[in-house]
Amino acid sequence: MKIFAIGLGPGDPAYLAPRARLAISESQVVVGYTGYMGMVADLVEGKECISTGMRGEAARCQSAIEEALKGKLVSVICSGDAGIYGMASLLYELAAQHPEIEIEVVPGITAAASAAAILGSPLTNDFAVISLSDLLTPWAVIEKRLRACSQGDLVICLYNPQSKKRNDHLKRACAIVLEHQPGQTNCGYVRNAYRAEGSQSQICTLDELSRAEVDMFTTVIIGNSGTRVINNKLVTVRGYAV
Amino acid sequence: MKIFAIGLGPGDPAYLAPRARLAISESQVVVGYTGYMGMVADLVEGKECISTGMRGEAARCQSAIEEALKGKLVSVICSGDAGIYGMASLLYELAAQHPEIEIEVVPGITAAASAAAILGSPLTNDFAVISLSDLLTPWAVIEKRLRACSQGDLVICLYNPQSKKRNDHLKRACAIVLEHQPGQTNCGYVRNAYRAEGSQSQICTLDELSRAEVDMFTTVIIGNSGTRVINNKLVTVRGYAV
Repeated sequence: MKIFAIGLGPGDPAYLAPRARLAISESQVVVGYTGYMGMVADLVEGKECISTGMRGEAARCQSAIEEALKGKLVSVICSGDAGIYGMASLLYELAAQHPEIEIEVVPGITAAASAAAILGSPLTNDFAVISLSDLLTPWAVIEKRLRACSQGDLVICLYNPQSKKRNDHLKRACAIVLEHQPGQTNCGYVRNAYRAEGSQSQICTLDELSRAEVDMFTTVIIGNSGTRVINNKLVTVRGYAV
Repeated sequence: MKIFAIGLGPGDPAYLAPRARLAISESQVVVGYTGYMGMVADLVEGKECISTGMRGEAARCQSAIEEALKGKLVSVICSGDAGIYGMASLLYELAAQHPEIEIEVVPGITAAASAAAILGSPLTNDFAVISLSDLLTPWAVIEKRLRACSQGDLVICLYNPQSKKRNDHLKRACAIVLEHQPGQTNCGYVRNAYRAEGSQSQICTLDELSRAEVDMFTTVIIGNSGTRVINNKLVTVRGYAV
């Protein structure tokens, strides 16, 4: 009995690992958010597909476990990496009473790496990845982490910077970082990295970022003291003596 | 004039993105650390290859720039992701006076994602990536970042935890985290993730980690307050009400 927890990467098949492709091809059942099924339409054609909307994570994992218990080979697909804000840990939790189910996490290219590659090379020194979604993590904890990482001069990559319901999270996050870092700190953000509809990216200062309009399809990178703009690219110098 | 900065992922071609494969295939010159050339031996056969040992990063980037200036299409290959402790930022720095050279960073699966996938799903909440190499970052800065991230209760992924010359960095890093987190904190480490020679992984407590013997091919993950061991896998719960 086996479930693959698969990271599809940014969405473009050019960035989908062969291992992920093979695992989906071999599976009898594919489970995932409706929006991700289209990314692997050629692979899931003719298979049993279980897809639900945005908030159905637990239901999707339960379905995957039920199908696996019937003896079917199941793939649960996520964008980016399945273990980085993906469904892998929820699968492990929900399958805790079923050690007979093997769960193989197939890693993928996470949004931090995709956004960084489009902006230049801002993650070439120590960095943190923080989600601004307070659906599952209390906002006070998120604030504590933002404060800690900006005090530590880490580059910070923000996932889920905004949603329709929460339209001031990025502004509040920037205000915290501004307590420790200058407004001229180099930053950037990318919307729809490597998606078929085309990605948009912007390099800006931390001051400008705090006034930027972004959505839930955007990944934000706040530089540290070593982040520069070189030929219109966002680059964190690693410290090589050049 | 163009240089690709390519992340090969963990090394196994099953985790190499098609985009990376295509870029290397199309290049006339491939530049990289000797040890990585073997990972893409089938792709570089017959091409002009420029490879040097471990410390030749700047020389390799300079060679890549010189070849690009001659009009050749060049790939610079790195393990993991080219922008995460890879050579992308050094390329941007060294090519600063040559805006006519386009640098495309091709993202890859970084060691944090590879190690996490083998251990289970420890990066499913906010996390930091910190290198313990003090060749390019002063140790005092590394300590400050470790302290900040453990105070912030982030999961911490350590790159370059040890080398022959530096045999106490992991022990010192653990001592700092132990100031803020209990010795029973769940941790894990992976050596040679997805490499042909086979990977070894170990789940342990923070106390045990501080006494562990690891090498430079090892990636370490220190859990946070939400990291559990479920059916022998390291899992950071995201907070879904299960």
